[in-house]
Amino acid sequence: MSKDKPSIPKGTRDFGPATVVKRNHIFSVIKRTFEKFGFLPLETPAMENLSVLTGKYGDEGDQLIFKILNSGDFLSKVTAPDLEAGYKPLTRRIAEKALRYDLTVPFARYVVMNRNEIAFPFKRYQIQPVWRADRPQRGRYREFYQCDADVVGTNSLLCEAEIILMMDEVLSTLGLDDFTIKFNHRGLLAGMAEVIGANGREADLCVAIDKLDKVGQEAVNEELRQKGITEEAITQLQPILGLTGNVVDLLPQLDRLMVGSEEGQRGVQDIRQMLTFLESFQLRNAKIELDVTLARGLSYYTGCIFEVKVNNVQMGSISGGGRYDNLTGMFGLPGVSGVGFSFGVDRIFDVLEELNLFPQESQTITQVLIANFDEVSMRYALPVLQQLRAADISTELYPDSTKLKKQMAYADQKQIPYVVLIGSEEMASGLLNLRNMRTGEQQSLSLEQILQTLSPNATA
Amino acid sequence: MSKDKPSIPKGTRDFGPATVVKRNHIFSVIKRTFEKFGFLPLETPAMENLSVLTGKYGDEGDQLIFKILNSGDFLSKVTAPDLEAGYKPLTRRIAEKALRYDLTVPFARYVVMNRNEIAFPFKRYQIQPVWRADRPQRGRYREFYQCDADVVGTNSLLCEAEIILMMDEVLSTLGLDDFTIKFNHRGLLAGMAEVIGANGREADLCVAIDKLDKVGQEAVNEELRQKGITEEAITQLQPILGLTGNVVDLLPQLDRLMVGSEEGQRGVQDIRQMLTFLESFQLRNAKIELDVTLARGLSYYTGCIFEVKVNNVQMGSISGGGRYDNLTGMFGLPGVSGVGFSFGVDRIFDVLEELNLFPQESQTITQVLIANFDEVSMRYALPVLQQLRAADISTELYPDSTKLKKQMAYADQKQIPYVVLIGSEEMASGLLNLRNMRTGEQQSLSLEQILQTLSPNATA
Repeated sequence: MSKDKPSIPKGTRDFGPATVVKRNHIFSVIKRTFEKFGFLPLETPAMENLSVLTGKYGDEGDQLIFKILNSGDFLSKVTAPDLEAGYKPLTRRIAEKALRYDLTVPFARYVVMNRNEIAFPFKRYQIQPVWRADRPQRGRYREFYQCDADVVGTNSLLCEAEIILMMDEVLSTLGLDDFTIKFNHRGLLAGMAEVIGANGREADLCVAIDKLDKVGQEAVNEELRQKGITEEAITQLQPILGLTGNVVDLLPQLDRLMVGSEEGQRGVQDIRQMLTFLESFQLRNAKIELDVTLARGLSYYTGCIFEVKVNNVQMGSISGGGRYDNLTGMFGLPGVSGVGFSFGVDRIFDVLEELNLFPQESQTITQVLIANFDEVSMRYALPVLQQLRAADISTELYPDSTKLKKQMAYADQKQIPYVVLIGSEEMASGLLNLRNMRTGEQQSLSLEQILQTLSPNATA
Repeated sequence: MSKDKPSIPKGTRDFGPATVVKRNHIFSVIKRTFEKFGFLPLETPAMENLSVLTGKYGDEGDQLIFKILNSGDFLSKVTAPDLEAGYKPLTRRIAEKALRYDLTVPFARYVVMNRNEIAFPFKRYQIQPVWRADRPQRGRYREFYQCDADVVGTNSLLCEAEIILMMDEVLSTLGLDDFTIKFNHRGLLAGMAEVIGANGREADLCVAIDKLDKVGQEAVNEELRQKGITEEAITQLQPILGLTGNVVDLLPQLDRLMVGSEEGQRGVQDIRQMLTFLESFQLRNAKIELDVTLARGLSYYTGCIFEVKVNNVQMGSISGGGRYDNLTGMFGLPGVSGVGFSFGVDRIFDVLEELNLFPQESQTITQVLIANFDEVSMRYALPVLQQLRAADISTELYPDSTKLKKQMAYADQKQIPYVVLIGSEEMASGLLNLRNMRTGEQQSLSLEQILQTLSPNATA
């Protein structure tokens, strides 16, 4: 047995109680919102067949998939030429399984495998960890949770409108009051390329435009030039990139600009339809913004795309998504359109921490510690303990009769808000001593009164 | 891209919505109980360093650990002799990480790594999947959840008594009313070996005795003979194995039998102390039984051991645990005593399914489907949709204006209990049609009345 100081793999994390409790607060708001909107939970295995994952994330993605060594004698069917062929071909010989890299591919696999049992449109959410062999760095982990919700099997733009509603509800419920949901449409990006005479070059345009925020318009133009976009096209692009204002003003301008592009027209119409739906709803805190330079997931999104930024906080997008026309085509089932989005829990966690938005209640698990003076007081405490728990109050009795100071330190460290003290006086009178650990205040109360004070069902 | 029909690895499972919802019901009862008893949640990474896991589960266990192939060129530091040394030594050269095999070793690692920050006694629970390269078979999976709760850093037998209380609470809350919590003590097993003159042979005794239920006393005796236990010892063992009756009767008999064994005496005293604590508590449904033949985890348990069986159901134990004296010794931190237990969620699931104990409410997520007749009715429905959700009622609007029959089938398949129908008549009168999908009953109600009927906060 190794007596070395143990450690955890780079890029992974232990979540101690205080952190789990805060993360669960985020998860439960997300989960509750997804369910309120009619999404049902799905869970897929951590391990997928490697063949299911390979080729879905590009060459770079394939390299970042964690492969699982075949169990038993993985060399038994490996030949000398296999060993000499290099690590990539050898990988397929000795590793048949891999850890999931995202939740989208497993979802597509699930839909294809269960297409005869599923009620379409299928609204599912999935909150599970994924694994990527990325180089660990600040804010980037090798194991992290994704929180996805997708609808497949309908083209209705109600789904897009509801994505905006869910983003608004989750983030508002978590206490954020200044964030912007940016959206754009793949058709507008294609149309933009078309109308400036750079047909089909939207990928290059977008890669460059994506840096607009960071490097400024001049640097973007320079990149476009280097990519062989004509000077004329770049000139024509400028007014489009310069479009600002609220969506009501923007849409007619875009409509005119895109008059020569079918794709562009599709984008304008989809956005108009989505906004029509949104008009019937009230948003709580979200600002919405049509950003014609927003480009993400170009290789798979085909309709609306979304991204959420918290204003006045240094942090990348905390949520995003879009519509894709062909989720399950990779598994031989074409024509299944869907739209989905996800929340970045690690980033939301950091934002809530920075803005001090985790509610105190959500951080308390154990409500009461009963101090343990001696055997007699301990025996007296046992039925008290049971009655507090029966009233749904999380309670523990310190298991050893040790120094009170140590027990109080324990309550402090565990952030237990109340300590019940039962000494000889208390046993004689039946009035127990309830100490509020935050204020230091102590009260002599009957068990009845304590139950009333602390019960989660009591009216405060 | 592979167009083959996709599949999932052997021994793993997808959990579709209906199953996730039922499993979450079990998890939430377990979680709520753990928290009510003062346990705090911990989450550790799926991947551990292989060196942390190796040697902790015996040779057979080491073989069943899923290893993760090093990312990038895993062959770069592998030499020709490495390749010829066989798969076992090669594994260590090409796989530094592995999937966790249980929750106990990661917990021990966590305690050692964080011993200066932890408030002892440390009460943690952990509900996460584990992975084992076992041969898949009915009821045995390669990925399955464990639900563990442990206290480390105290010898108090209050912890043992509370384990029985938690087993009782979880299983009773889940609706089980006929189950037995069996317990025994490692000291009694050692004492038994001692008093029959087979000192230190308790492992052999236990392996044989463990089969008592299945093969009967004669076959057990025969196995003992073959293992070289003397005929005299076997004769002396018989009255001990034959001990039955309730614990109050048993304990004095055991006390007399164990008079010559220090270990045996320790067992009797511990059990007596635990029972003294239990007397102050009320059990809901559990029967408790001292079973001197109960043997499990002999290589690590050192005190009380527990096991729970549901009566009149064909199923192995659904919960178990025990005290161990040296959890963290494997990582160089001796002297940390602990006691823990866990629930077998897959087995509990099967038992609840068999006894039809999953509550109907726990299976409903979406409460209401609003049918979608046409564009006008859809527009009318949007604010209705938002108000239902604002009242915390999970609601969806069918996204497409399609045949009503198809929408009703969708509600049926998703087990949505209510459908709201909004036709031209309903829009004119403002009275919506609420259809109860179980009874088929339809009512004309105002939105106010619907909210009152369905609100989770409404008094039924």
